[in-house]
Amino acid sequence: MTLVNINARRLWQRIMSMAEIGATSLGGSSRLALTDEDRCGRDLFIEWCRQANCEVRIDRLGNIFARRPGTDPECLPIACGSHLDTQPLGGRFDGVFGVLAGLEVLETLNDNGIQTRSPLEVCVWTNEEGARFTPPMLASGVHAGVYSLEYALARQDDHGISLAEALEAIGYVGEVACGSHRLGAFLEAHIEQGPVLEREQKTVGVVSGVQGSRWYRVSLTGQEAHTGSTPMLGRRDALAAAARLIVEVQAIADAHAPLAVASVGHIENVPNSPNTLSGQVELTIDMRHPRVEGQASMESALRQASAKVAEDTSVVVQLNRIMDTPPVDFHPDCIEVIEEAASSRGYRYRRMLSGAGHDACHLAGVTPTAMIFVPCAGGLSHNEAESAELNDLAAGTNVLLDAMLHLAEQPPEADQVRASATAAAECSQH
Amino acid sequence: MTLVNINARRLWQRIMSMAEIGATSLGGSSRLALTDEDRCGRDLFIEWCRQANCEVRIDRLGNIFARRPGTDPECLPIACGSHLDTQPLGGRFDGVFGVLAGLEVLETLNDNGIQTRSPLEVCVWTNEEGARFTPPMLASGVHAGVYSLEYALARQDDHGISLAEALEAIGYVGEVACGSHRLGAFLEAHIEQGPVLEREQKTVGVVSGVQGSRWYRVSLTGQEAHTGSTPMLGRRDALAAAARLIVEVQAIADAHAPLAVASVGHIENVPNSPNTLSGQVELTIDMRHPRVEGQASMESALRQASAKVAEDTSVVVQLNRIMDTPPVDFHPDCIEVIEEAASSRGYRYRRMLSGAGHDACHLAGVTPTAMIFVPCAGGLSHNEAESAELNDLAAGTNVLLDAMLHLAEQPPEADQVRASATAAAECSQH
Repeated sequence: MTLVNINARRLWQRIMSMAEIGATSLGGSSRLALTDEDRCGRDLFIEWCRQANCEVRIDRLGNIFARRPGTDPECLPIACGSHLDTQPLGGRFDGVFGVLAGLEVLETLNDNGIQTRSPLEVCVWTNEEGARFTPPMLASGVHAGVYSLEYALARQDDHGISLAEALEAIGYVGEVACGSHRLGAFLEAHIEQGPVLEREQKTVGVVSGVQGSRWYRVSLTGQEAHTGSTPMLGRRDALAAAARLIVEVQAIADAHAPLAVASVGHIENVPNSPNTLSGQVELTIDMRHPRVEGQASMESALRQASAKVAEDTSVVVQLNRIMDTPPVDFHPDCIEVIEEAASSRGYRYRRMLSGAGHDACHLAGVTPTAMIFVPCAGGLSHNEAESAELNDLAAGTNVLLDAMLHLAEQPPEADQVRASATAAAECSQH
Repeated sequence: MTLVNINARRLWQRIMSMAEIGATSLGGSSRLALTDEDRCGRDLFIEWCRQANCEVRIDRLGNIFARRPGTDPECLPIACGSHLDTQPLGGRFDGVFGVLAGLEVLETLNDNGIQTRSPLEVCVWTNEEGARFTPPMLASGVHAGVYSLEYALARQDDHGISLAEALEAIGYVGEVACGSHRLGAFLEAHIEQGPVLEREQKTVGVVSGVQGSRWYRVSLTGQEAHTGSTPMLGRRDALAAAARLIVEVQAIADAHAPLAVASVGHIENVPNSPNTLSGQVELTIDMRHPRVEGQASMESALRQASAKVAEDTSVVVQLNRIMDTPPVDFHPDCIEVIEEAASSRGYRYRRMLSGAGHDACHLAGVTPTAMIFVPCAGGLSHNEAESAELNDLAAGTNVLLDAMLHLAEQPPEADQVRASATAAAECSQH
């Protein structure tokens, strides 16, 4: 196979052009799902695809499939892609990079007159961010059979507008039945959204899976009282109890190092007055681990810690699991072909897990899937200041190119989809 | 001296009549300072005083002095009292009990035809709660020379109305120059607003002083990051650091037991999203101790703990003291005469410190002063559900009666005002 390189300047210019749509004052982008800005972004992408002689299909949820034909009409398409919607004040790279890296791969093949056996496709998944319509990764979830079409169409934004209405309004209700468009493989290139690659000065992350996450809602009920006239003994201070629990959450993550993360990012305190002891605290715990057994062990430790805090403080602690996303393992063939490409190109790379959720999580349930990460400055994402280096984006796109070329000739074994969680977890040093 | 008893039924009925003014749906009272409700409460009190043949004087800040004359025109008045303003949703007893207990003492002396050498007075202090105009205990502070008259008159409420305008509007600008009306002693009867008396089944608290309090504003600055994709190592999680600090605050109080209390009642977390590590936390620490050395030791421990948390978490911790109220010691003669009265009457009593601030704190700086506490249900105050027992209120009022009769014949030594903090702290078992 001839080694060809993608056109980094074209890739960068397209990312910057896309960022102009919904550009924010601090250099980011605001293209909430199915808004006019999202429509403009989609229109621009499709215009570029048509210029690259791609066939464009759209499904009932507005998912876009842009195809460069192959030589063997029996082959399923080898696909890549991501999303074009953003957070309300999002960055230029989250999602956009994966979509435009895919287009750049197709353009590069055009430029070099390279034919592939399997067709190649670039996908754009609707409403990945979940910032306008919850849950996130909604339309890729319908594609993978995780959610029904009806469920997705009925989702409403904060103004009561349904996803069906919003999709209709921007003219992106397609003909293709959701999930009917089968893919032979799916690769998603993405900025890491974490600090690992930058810290280790690696250029490429070979993503072997996505850790499982569970969210817990905790209500702590104490007794409001005067901070001055209430002795320490006999207090039922909900915030003091919450503080102990937050410290325990950190300890649980440390006890499950190095694979676990655990955090409390959200807390509400009532009445929240400097001289009144807290009567009520609500907080949300986010715990993640790449193995189901790890998740179970962390949950068990959390339940013990909650009971101990309740016993020691006389504060009533109610713990409810409100979300449970199991770990995802990507397809060994896809992981290997990405690693081989990174290695052959001489890039500094490492295997790693994704801490965040992506459309690839859903795709992995129905299609051989893996992801390619590139570094982002300071690990910062979901932020207008999100930043990535041209050279890193180009490297990730070259890896995507090589991997797709390889898979287009030797498609992965579909029967290995949903391999055991353990294998992927063990090959990660995350 | 003949042992006479106050009229508990009359006291109770007057407390209930006062509670009708600004009555709230849940059985409390809403008489914010210098509102129409406050005016009605003042008018009712003055009407009762005139029916009891008292002379009523009012100073420039609306502080009311109702006098029952004595036999020796050379003697300064032996005074008692508290306040009639309430929290926005306050209870029936906070402040009101102290004022109407004083009136009941005067009525009882009338009923029994008892003359006193010194005149007796009941005081009503303006804007004790600080709920409409900050700071609390404002007009007693001006009386004691802690604040200037101009400062007090310029205070504004949330609607930009000055205290001067509000006072004028309800017609309570008096002729007496603030601070010119000298008192020979001041006794304040009050519900405890804490759980100690109820827990120990005591009827009377002989209050020897008020603990000092310091407030600290703490800003913790970390780094926002994705909870899933940011490894535990290298995080700068402001809320995790805040939790450690709150736990340390509890430990500092425990290390200074049994005299110390310390609390965090107020916390703000940014961005407060379940899957984003906290970038910024603001919290307020309330630390109290009856001795200045204790306050200093707690502050030193707090500064060490903050530095340790900052070092361990890589979160920037800024600690600022925003309030410093030194401990107050009440006058030994006043304390003794209250204790003697409680003992003679056979009431279960204990010496204790006040955890909360009261007008008596300011009065103690210029006049021999002490306080009498009675239990309140569950220690609950600043709450519509505030509740106290008739028998306890009557007992506290009988103690007030006896103590005022004693002081009216043998006034306390004014040169012992502002005795050392240590003496009062050491006699407390709080």
